[in-house]
Amino acid sequence: MSNNAAAEEEGDSVTRPLLLPLSLRRSSSNATSQLAIVGSNLCPIESLDYEIIENDFLKQDWRSRSKSQICQYIFMKWMLCFLIGIVVGLIGFTNNLLVENIAGMKFVVTSNMMLARKFWAAFFVFSTSNFALTLFASLITVLISPEAAGSGIPEVKAYLNGVDAPGIFSLRTLVVKIVGSICAVSSSLHIGKAGPMVHTGACVAALLGQVGSKKYGLTWRWLRYFKNDRDRRDLVTCGSAAGIAAAFRAPVGGVLFAFEEMASWWRSALLWRAFFTTAAVAIVLRALIDFCYSGKCGLFGTGGLIMFDVTSESVSYHLGDVPAVILLGVIGGILGSFYNFLLDKVLRIYNLVNGKGRISKILIACSISIFTSCLLFGLPWLASCQACPTDASEPCPTIGRSGNYKKFQCPPGHYNDLASLIFNTNDDAIRNLFSKNTDSEFHVSSILIFFTACFFLSIFSYGIAVPSGLFVPVILTGASYGRFIGMLFGSRSNLNHGLFAVLGSASLLGGSMRMTVSLCVIILELTNNLLLLPLIMLVLLISKTVADAFNGNIYDIIMRLKGFPYLESHVEPYMRQLTVSDVVTGPLQLFHGIEKVSNIVHVLKTTRHNGFPVIDEPPLSETPILFGLILRAHLITLLKKKAFLPNPMTTGIDAFDQFTAGDFQKKGSLGNSDKIEDIDLSQEEMEMFVDLHPFTNASPYTVVETMSLAKALILFREVGLRHLLVIPTISNRSPVAGILTRHDFMPEHVLGLHPLLPKMAKAGLVVCNFRLAWSRFSQATPSQFGTRLLASGHHADFSGPN
Amino acid sequence: MSNNAAAEEEGDSVTRPLLLPLSLRRSSSNATSQLAIVGSNLCPIESLDYEIIENDFLKQDWRSRSKSQICQYIFMKWMLCFLIGIVVGLIGFTNNLLVENIAGMKFVVTSNMMLARKFWAAFFVFSTSNFALTLFASLITVLISPEAAGSGIPEVKAYLNGVDAPGIFSLRTLVVKIVGSICAVSSSLHIGKAGPMVHTGACVAALLGQVGSKKYGLTWRWLRYFKNDRDRRDLVTCGSAAGIAAAFRAPVGGVLFAFEEMASWWRSALLWRAFFTTAAVAIVLRALIDFCYSGKCGLFGTGGLIMFDVTSESVSYHLGDVPAVILLGVIGGILGSFYNFLLDKVLRIYNLVNGKGRISKILIACSISIFTSCLLFGLPWLASCQACPTDASEPCPTIGRSGNYKKFQCPPGHYNDLASLIFNTNDDAIRNLFSKNTDSEFHVSSILIFFTACFFLSIFSYGIAVPSGLFVPVILTGASYGRFIGMLFGSRSNLNHGLFAVLGSASLLGGSMRMTVSLCVIILELTNNLLLLPLIMLVLLISKTVADAFNGNIYDIIMRLKGFPYLESHVEPYMRQLTVSDVVTGPLQLFHGIEKVSNIVHVLKTTRHNGFPVIDEPPLSETPILFGLILRAHLITLLKKKAFLPNPMTTGIDAFDQFTAGDFQKKGSLGNSDKIEDIDLSQEEMEMFVDLHPFTNASPYTVVETMSLAKALILFREVGLRHLLVIPTISNRSPVAGILTRHDFMPEHVLGLHPLLPKMAKAGLVVCNFRLAWSRFSQATPSQFGTRLLASGHHADFSGPN
Repeated sequence: MSNNAAAEEEGDSVTRPLLLPLSLRRSSSNATSQLAIVGSNLCPIESLDYEIIENDFLKQDWRSRSKSQICQYIFMKWMLCFLIGIVVGLIGFTNNLLVENIAGMKFVVTSNMMLARKFWAAFFVFSTSNFALTLFASLITVLISPEAAGSGIPEVKAYLNGVDAPGIFSLRTLVVKIVGSICAVSSSLHIGKAGPMVHTGACVAALLGQVGSKKYGLTWRWLRYFKNDRDRRDLVTCGSAAGIAAAFRAPVGGVLFAFEEMASWWRSALLWRAFFTTAAVAIVLRALIDFCYSGKCGLFGTGGLIMFDVTSESVSYHLGDVPAVILLGVIGGILGSFYNFLLDKVLRIYNLVNGKGRISKILIACSISIFTSCLLFGLPWLASCQACPTDASEPCPTIGRSGNYKKFQCPPGHYNDLASLIFNTNDDAIRNLFSKNTDSEFHVSSILIFFTACFFLSIFSYGIAVPSGLFVPVILTGASYGRFIGMLFGSRSNLNHGLFAVLGSASLLGGSMRMTVSLCVIILELTNNLLLLPLIMLVLLISKTVADAFNGNIYDIIMRLKGFPYLESHVEPYMRQLTVSDVVTGPLQLFHGIEKVSNIVHVLKTTRHNGFPVIDEPPLSETPILFGLILRAHLITLLKKKAFLPNPMTTGIDAFDQFTAGDFQKKGSLGNSDKIEDIDLSQEEMEMFVDLHPFTNASPYTVVETMSLAKALILFREVGLRHLLVIPTISNRSPVAGILTRHDFMPEHVLGLHPLLPKMAKAGLVVCNFRLAWSRFSQATPSQFGTRLLASGHHADFSGPN
Repeated sequence: MSNNAAAEEEGDSVTRPLLLPLSLRRSSSNATSQLAIVGSNLCPIESLDYEIIENDFLKQDWRSRSKSQICQYIFMKWMLCFLIGIVVGLIGFTNNLLVENIAGMKFVVTSNMMLARKFWAAFFVFSTSNFALTLFASLITVLISPEAAGSGIPEVKAYLNGVDAPGIFSLRTLVVKIVGSICAVSSSLHIGKAGPMVHTGACVAALLGQVGSKKYGLTWRWLRYFKNDRDRRDLVTCGSAAGIAAAFRAPVGGVLFAFEEMASWWRSALLWRAFFTTAAVAIVLRALIDFCYSGKCGLFGTGGLIMFDVTSESVSYHLGDVPAVILLGVIGGILGSFYNFLLDKVLRIYNLVNGKGRISKILIACSISIFTSCLLFGLPWLASCQACPTDASEPCPTIGRSGNYKKFQCPPGHYNDLASLIFNTNDDAIRNLFSKNTDSEFHVSSILIFFTACFFLSIFSYGIAVPSGLFVPVILTGASYGRFIGMLFGSRSNLNHGLFAVLGSASLLGGSMRMTVSLCVIILELTNNLLLLPLIMLVLLISKTVADAFNGNIYDIIMRLKGFPYLESHVEPYMRQLTVSDVVTGPLQLFHGIEKVSNIVHVLKTTRHNGFPVIDEPPLSETPILFGLILRAHLITLLKKKAFLPNPMTTGIDAFDQFTAGDFQKKGSLGNSDKIEDIDLSQEEMEMFVDLHPFTNASPYTVVETMSLAKALILFREVGLRHLLVIPTISNRSPVAGILTRHDFMPEHVLGLHPLLPKMAKAGLVVCNFRLAWSRFSQATPSQFGTRLLASGHHADFSGPN
């Protein structure tokens, strides 16, 4: 009974024992799987269905639609993208505005006290305000929406791959994410706002598409076409692009980020739609920043559309600078993979503590806040005061919020270089590090202290229960490391230290996040220096290559920690040794074209499968034939509406009168969908029959049982399936041999069934680092290094209907 | 006999009559199809096979490979990308260098004569040199490689979709493309070099991957892993990215162009590889341009890495400028679609003339050259001379090659504004139009004359038999139209006329080529003005939207003209009315697992299919079962090696000793592959048997016969298939019901079989402009507006093996 839809029953496998030893063996092989670790309780994870459900009922419904309804659909889809752009642009701007004002006000007050040499009072104000902001952020996160913790990028990425973690797109999560992110970033924690903005964008997109849901009492008929996974996926992709566009004011970078990192399925048409969305973001941001130039936005207003402008008339660099850039790339790659490694370990430790309850989550957040405040206030005292340069382009020491020359504890006419970096908002610190003509401003020891503090603070701050991103901390850490390398090279390089800082950021981003084109464009849009492009490309390539030799992309690591059953685009080599029949397990649950109600109720209650093959047998056809696949949700709708027949005979067109297309629309989120347990049926009704034909998807994708698992996985992923039917090659058997779901392709599942496989693989070949390249290689020239003998023993595992 | 591989037999259907009336009916429905029109003879077009052929022989071969061979593969793949980058970078630079020097020298000589007021001599030199260059370019194109005519982008795009037009990637074509493009661009024809550079890049990539081919006597063992369609597709994608990167010095734009416009299959890993390739291009270009700064490159050397720099300290534009931008976008969209419409008509006319033979092709090219020379020399006389501004930043009138103030026929102290645009290389004209602080330099009438000349010249120049691109003419035309709009707005807009020109170029590019993200990044990399980004995004979106209402992308139009069977990513709505069994036609040709040689020879000689299902029947198995699919190429190899059995019994492992993996590698190009007619077999051998099992792909993709055509097409395209097996749902029939190939999914084919479909479609819905959006819509909520009755009549068309 656990043949199909295994991903869905995983949540259960932890809370109650399963019926069959076979299933037990499978679930025990990845017991940590399918459980969101950070900031969430144990909960089941649903798969999404991107396949087109072509059944007679929906086809008939389609035929009845008019021209104007098609126009409605087209218009609404563009309108929704436009609205996503506008809303995300506004949220991004508000976020920026509030952070700059809250954090700015804090620094102004503290700096004024420092000027008056009231150091203890300054520390008290600084640490108390940080503590209060962090406490508030973590309280709302823990109590209202634990799903809002962290960056949200892994969740959105998994969603776009077809994994629906519950609650990630609720209104609750959206509000907590926005408010929590503003508070947490303002509280001088070492976290960024880009990740939360991506989640916010995706959330806005998902919510706008389902505004009509009854839960919020805002039903709008025009939105009914968007209540399916395919359209929602498109909107969420656009939303995540808008998120990066708003966070970094980088519209093109946002689109590329969504396509390179987030999306699992690409289409040119979707690229255009995402571009439209981010264009809306860009125009909103441009207009609002224009408005702020007149000084109506408080402490916000210094930054234009380019966040960290490093333009210079001519960047001159020559062949001699290439070794420095290569060195930056190599070290950036090593540091980046080390960063990922440490973050993984820290998150695992946090997870143990977080598992103890809400109080411990809040305690961790608060202690990190106090620790950060102490560090930020204490470290600048280590740096010695430096005399102001006589030719400084801005007032020295700076009185006020930003600026390169923080006075801190220094006497008049002097400044504290470490305080300029540390006792500042992250954005201003990056701006200082990227700035040109500041080569002599910072001392080596200050930069080193700053780098070390950044590196570890950002690792320890990410996992706490507040919305937090990784981009800005990584940029900051990378910039300080880049400047340090620049200082080592000194006058031997033509590049100024600001450009070294930019390249350092690029290298650490490449080493940690492993993107290429999108990072390149984002950095370009952040710094507005196109002439640097060849060097940025070089440094990104090197750091990614070096880092890939050690471990994976940071988001993939977090996704694995959270246990999302993510389908990789490459195929594990051992999958070529197996046929699909080797992984299909358990007895298969089938329905007949005309099925007894009690059978359906029994099957729905005793299994958690979400799709069932429908076959027609001799009374209805000459031989048993496969008719199609019916979904659990549609069966429940049928039972709920009680469209029953007194005896098993075909109804024909009657069924269409009893239903509207709305009955079969997907409900907004997991909690809303109907449960089989909620449906009451009388004994009489249980003895009646249902005609499943009009509601069965008559065009399911299929593979023959001798198909290699690797090729079935390619089909499954490329077409975006939830269920894949396995049909027998021998033609006089039952017309369907099994069902494959996402879970059946997970490496843990496959290796659980065939534990000898990896050893055989390792005996012949190096798997670890070459894995990706190797699987490409084996695609080019097919592999099967194991024996088929191993596989043949499992053929008996599945048989016809029973 | 014409069931499968129909695309391949199409060439034939024109030159000799087919056997079956059924086939005849099908081919007559699209007789113009599959024939490259521009610059090529009638020739058959092959499909490419991106599926992984998993047969026992190749699996065994793979198992025998060592660790070091995997390293070889990985290393070689990166090395090839690197080499592609270096070579394409060098070619791009050489191209630029030669064009600037040849065309520059021509203008210097002519200008000097004009200075000396020898007008007729100047005209003679100008037109003669243009004529000679065009004649040479068109001679080598027509005589040596007709495939090199045109931009080559449609051919490469079709290749990446799976259509192999013969000869497009030969060494001949590469040389003609490079030399022809240099000559044609230098000859002041109104054509660009970007399109030919894309083809050049793709060609370099395809050739580097097959350097080992015996034809060129350079066999290298390490390259043997790349002799398959999948790896070649990846390399060609990288090559086309490198082409744009080299032509526009736009590495990121190149990658995006390859992915948005060219590629039909995207993968994140491939994105990274393409990025690596274009990074190599960028570094080569940067180094060479650095070298040229010292003045060693003749007349080349003024342009840096940014071709048309329009940086300014602060671009200030406000809400009031948006209407102007929207107007630019709307008119750009209308102009762009009109451009596509005219180009289509002109190409059809040229095609009729070109069909008359080589002489007529050369005559057209020559007459266009003469006409262009007359126009370029004659038009500036229409403009009145203007007095030099007193505050000009450069010498006026310009003495020498480039510069804004061409003297032409004017008296000293005056300049001819039209000549500054017309009597110049295209690049310099664009630079003049984009330049700031030149608002008063050009007269409205000059800009209008220039715009009209550009628009029509570029349309008439594209189709002649020389390598020619569309990008630069469109940019130039767009820039002049943008400046004209800028003049109309005058002081009511904050934007200077140079920025109007940039936006005008963007709008015409968007209206003609319909790209978004890639055009945006290319324009950014060309002009280095990031602050303009929101406006460029806006103008691109509007122009694309407006133009899409009228007709398609220019490259798609040319592809249709050339008759490439391109698989669109969207599904035609009427395909949902049909099942796959409705389009499978003709008797199916099957082989048995152990087949008689004479049967194989007979089938191979009488059909042109490229894939055959292999089944095992009762003597070998209990019931008939589907074993897999065998390719024609592999069958021919088997026959050639004469690995025959005296009687029909299984051989087991013996076959592996007789073959090496190299025997089954795909040959470089169409002409090289072995033909069945070349194989001599004795009568005795004809009576022997072959064991096909080890060479049969045992994991073919399959669909059941009741699958809707639309969903089968999605599978076919997403997975990149050449053959798709159709299997019956009723289980006691033959195990295979038919084969689908690319041709079976072509709208012409489907409509040929079911001529009533479009009428039924139109009755219910508007198809024309809403088509794309509608098919998306119908994916979200499935459609079937026709009747199934129509389809059912065709079920008898195919039956079991015979």
